[in-house]
Amino acid sequence: MNYNAILQEIHQETKALPVIGNVASTIPELANVDSNKFGMHLTTIDGQDFGIGDSNEKFSIQSVSKALTVTLAFSFLGEKVWERVGVEPSGNPFNSLVQLEYEKGIPRNPFINAGALVIADMLVTHLEHPKEDFLDFIRTISGCDTITYNLKVAQSEKDTGFRNAALANFLKSFGNIENDVEVVLDFYFHQCSLEMTCKELAHSFFFFANEGKTKSGQQILTRSQVKRLNALMQTCGFYDESGEFTYKVGLPGKSGIGGGIGALFPQHFSVATWSPRLNEKGNSEMGMYALEQLTTKTGMSIF
Amino acid sequence: MNYNAILQEIHQETKALPVIGNVASTIPELANVDSNKFGMHLTTIDGQDFGIGDSNEKFSIQSVSKALTVTLAFSFLGEKVWERVGVEPSGNPFNSLVQLEYEKGIPRNPFINAGALVIADMLVTHLEHPKEDFLDFIRTISGCDTITYNLKVAQSEKDTGFRNAALANFLKSFGNIENDVEVVLDFYFHQCSLEMTCKELAHSFFFFANEGKTKSGQQILTRSQVKRLNALMQTCGFYDESGEFTYKVGLPGKSGIGGGIGALFPQHFSVATWSPRLNEKGNSEMGMYALEQLTTKTGMSIF
Amino acid sequence: MNYNAILQEIHQETKALPVIGNVASTIPELANVDSNKFGMHLTTIDGQDFGIGDSNEKFSIQSVSKALTVTLAFSFLGEKVWERVGVEPSGNPFNSLVQLEYEKGIPRNPFINAGALVIADMLVTHLEHPKEDFLDFIRTISGCDTITYNLKVAQSEKDTGFRNAALANFLKSFGNIENDVEVVLDFYFHQCSLEMTCKELAHSFFFFANEGKTKSGQQILTRSQVKRLNALMQTCGFYDESGEFTYKVGLPGKSGIGGGIGALFPQHFSVATWSPRLNEKGNSEMGMYALEQLTTKTGMSIF
Amino acid sequence: MNYNAILQEIHQETKALPVIGNVASTIPELANVDSNKFGMHLTTIDGQDFGIGDSNEKFSIQSVSKALTVTLAFSFLGEKVWERVGVEPSGNPFNSLVQLEYEKGIPRNPFINAGALVIADMLVTHLEHPKEDFLDFIRTISGCDTITYNLKVAQSEKDTGFRNAALANFLKSFGNIENDVEVVLDFYFHQCSLEMTCKELAHSFFFFANEGKTKSGQQILTRSQVKRLNALMQTCGFYDESGEFTYKVGLPGKSGIGGGIGALFPQHFSVATWSPRLNEKGNSEMGMYALEQLTTKTGMSIF
Repeated sequence: MNYNAILQEIHQETKALPVIGNVASTIPELANVDSNKFGMHLTTIDGQDFGIGDSNEKFSIQSVSKALTVTLAFSFLGEKVWERVGVEPSGNPFNSLVQLEYEKGIPRNPFINAGALVIADMLVTHLEHPKEDFLDFIRTISGCDTITYNLKVAQSEKDTGFRNAALANFLKSFGNIENDVEVVLDFYFHQCSLEMTCKELAHSFFFFANEGKTKSGQQILTRSQVKRLNALMQTCGFYDESGEFTYKVGLPGKSGIGGGIGALFPQHFSVATWSPRLNEKGNSEMGMYALEQLTTKTGMSIF
Repeated sequence: MNYNAILQEIHQETKALPVIGNVASTIPELANVDSNKFGMHLTTIDGQDFGIGDSNEKFSIQSVSKALTVTLAFSFLGEKVWERVGVEPSGNPFNSLVQLEYEKGIPRNPFINAGALVIADMLVTHLEHPKEDFLDFIRTISGCDTITYNLKVAQSEKDTGFRNAALANFLKSFGNIENDVEVVLDFYFHQCSLEMTCKELAHSFFFFANEGKTKSGQQILTRSQVKRLNALMQTCGFYDESGEFTYKVGLPGKSGIGGGIGALFPQHFSVATWSPRLNEKGNSEMGMYALEQLTTKTGMSIF
Repeated sequence: MNYNAILQEIHQETKALPVIGNVASTIPELANVDSNKFGMHLTTIDGQDFGIGDSNEKFSIQSVSKALTVTLAFSFLGEKVWERVGVEPSGNPFNSLVQLEYEKGIPRNPFINAGALVIADMLVTHLEHPKEDFLDFIRTISGCDTITYNLKVAQSEKDTGFRNAALANFLKSFGNIENDVEVVLDFYFHQCSLEMTCKELAHSFFFFANEGKTKSGQQILTRSQVKRLNALMQTCGFYDESGEFTYKVGLPGKSGIGGGIGALFPQHFSVATWSPRLNEKGNSEMGMYALEQLTTKTGMSIF
Repeated sequence: MNYNAILQEIHQETKALPVIGNVASTIPELANVDSNKFGMHLTTIDGQDFGIGDSNEKFSIQSVSKALTVTLAFSFLGEKVWERVGVEPSGNPFNSLVQLEYEKGIPRNPFINAGALVIADMLVTHLEHPKEDFLDFIRTISGCDTITYNLKVAQSEKDTGFRNAALANFLKSFGNIENDVEVVLDFYFHQCSLEMTCKELAHSFFFFANEGKTKSGQQILTRSQVKRLNALMQTCGFYDESGEFTYKVGLPGKSGIGGGIGALFPQHFSVATWSPRLNEKGNSEMGMYALEQLTTKTGMSIF
């Protein structure tokens, strides 16, 4: 497969696309990003790297981090994770409180905000120095020591994160947050503020494509565990557009409102895209388009 | 009307009732109250007082205070109050977040917790010393200078009030809380911790029965305004049991999970009951029974 | 009280009102009515009649009939009625299926469509010739032998009543409809097609104001039962605008999408208005205004 | 891969399982089936057949038929199908009306009952003799001319299908059913009454695994279309247990309340199971177990 040629084609096509969508405005510090940025990076299972556009520029990974926190929690706690958070698609926006109320404080899955807060709570309980230890984990799986939190972004999220504070307090009222709400929110706002390039994100997602083993050969999860998280990303990774993404792209993946997407084709490649313009569901318009083109042109989808 | 004889009859009948319901357990400091307490006090429009049972014992008025905060806000802001909170029954439990999400942060009415938090926010904005000034107002309308907050109860509510914190943050995320969430919650937990006797509560509700004028003759609201708040209590005062209370009792009133109820018959009397055992909707079992008997025996209901 | 002068004043004022709202379009046969019609009729407890405008013109009473079917069912079944339908406001539009699903097929109250269908089912079970017998009942309480169904309207509702058919089938799936769905719907569409003038409607509602006794002296319900239905109209008579109507008007009443409203002040008068323009909640814009003016000008409200 | 040995192992293991779940009771005609039946049949892409247990006994495929009706509609209408029905998981039970109301009559996906009714309506519009033509289609894709409707089951569903009648009328009220409700329901009850053996069902699902081509070589859908329906089955095929099935089994599939499941591993095999005992979500307990064992033992899942 000539990935280089395919990515070049995609790059040309994205340039011809009409300008659709808007940069996320809910977090002031993110609103300033250049809306025309576009990057994409693909890493094959045998270690080859292919990048286009702004693929070496840092961006805020935001909710893409949820795929990585659940990985770390799963590696500690195994199936116990699912006693406090489900594996079903929610059918509701990412920050909805409705379902949580009907279902007594058990979030539908770890990729809606409520579920990610419960996962954050697990990490705060299990890690000695939660923020530092999680950052170490990220550096390990990505093989990149310069990845770090953007503290301005973390602070900006905190200053405006009233709905996340509502969710955390609501979860606490059901007994599904063990630690102080403030501490859990602080961890969560930090994880969302992680900055990576497309290349670093593709490397971070490499183990999902490689049966649990990172690019540098470290086994993070078992083969079976990785399959399960891939399945979870497939059904729940794009909020209430997960079905659409599965229907059109057919790869497990996770999006973030910073405009990034991490995705993978098991045993073949991991891939990351970045374009800050979001559609009305909060997913990157051009990133979804680029990944759809990737599976169309390569004929590679899991289905 | 021989109110004295009627109250004595009711007192006898309540003693013969089976023991039903449980003391509220959500606020630890309230859980210790003696569940067998029962008091009732009626004050006629011409100033006569009739009390039975534990009518001179203090209890935590909790949500009954919502009828008094909305009075104060209404006296300041007039119809502007209804730009931020509705006048419709909610059809949901008092602390539900569901409707709030569908209706973009405008609480259905000032008697569900979300609505009371918005009212609290109005008072925090308008009063120079919110907690002190509101207490002064309560002392004025009740004519009783010894009424005060129970700081232990306020603290206990704060320590366990995660759902109220969720509601306040959720409202803030919709822009319907102006002040700091912490400050609004602090005010709210204090208003709920007010302690009164049945007699003091009946006196506090006197102006609702007396076209806006307190027992000592001070005009708190206009005649028209009082009618409107009475109407609001009638349709929304008992959470999702408001219809049942209206159907059976037919008087405007407001209940609290401390087991207290304040009610009134316009131009005739105000009345308060206290019995800590609550039914599953969070309303005082024996208090509702006593008020139903009162309207049955006197034949006095607004309908 | 000079009702004549007050009604004349109201009549003048309504003429000066801006034209707001639209005639109901869901039932084709109703859409042709002249949108500028306005009538109002008040009957005092001592039998005096006061009418203005088009108060002697027939209109389709639609959901106002629900107050009369529940009366007949209540007179047969007493409190048993409430085993199959509640007395709580719904907080949802009149034809919503949502709450019904969460609450297992027990409609919130007899004035939302689901509740009225259950009441219709009760009447179909209890009456030998349901449509004929109900019409006889209407003629009895109104004292008017010419009141009849509009068969074209009934047919028009049947042809387009898919949501009511959905509700009836849904109720049947929960076991809360005993008879054939078709038969119940046929009865329901007929009751809604009843035509009355304002005067006839005010006379039909007379017993609600007169402790259960019709204008001609027949006792339809006990005094206590009438109080309870008045309470129910107060909290639930105007769909999810019941709170607003109670807040502004403060009288028990029932509206219909034909633009009619029946209301009453216990022990003083019954009153009917008709103006086909509806607000977005499905209630008559000018009718609500006229009733608000009536209570403002007379100072008579139950609160 | 020694499928024969693996299926034999699974057969032994299922015998040792505790008896869990109950036969569907909602359709009387189905309630009489022997609850201990268990069959499984796997057909490899190169045409080999492997069966165990009661794999040659007919059962009612019920909702498994939804995967086949959407196939036929998709083959006619292409992407236009998705103008009237979505591709998102619903997060609600299969026969819920709630989401439909909030989303104005557009069902979330073609596998919940509401969506299947819209698909049925499309087929009624497009097929000259809907029931006969659809049966022909089934016989074509399965290569089995003896497959037929069970008219007793179809009648039984009609007699008790009030919730489906509610859904169809509700959809009609939103304009998302073109034909007569009765006609659409009749077609729907017939499609659900189809009877197949596990072998016939595996053969019917063969084209999903074989890029759109049936076992006898007929191209039913394009390669791209089949991928999309596989994606849809993956995210939505098991009602609100779709995430769980994806998480544990990792194969696209569709279940029915008759206890049948059709599933597939793209480019490798199609597979069908039958065991009438259902879990509380309405999916076959032992069928899900058998498929989980299949992917565990073969190591074959799409993730």
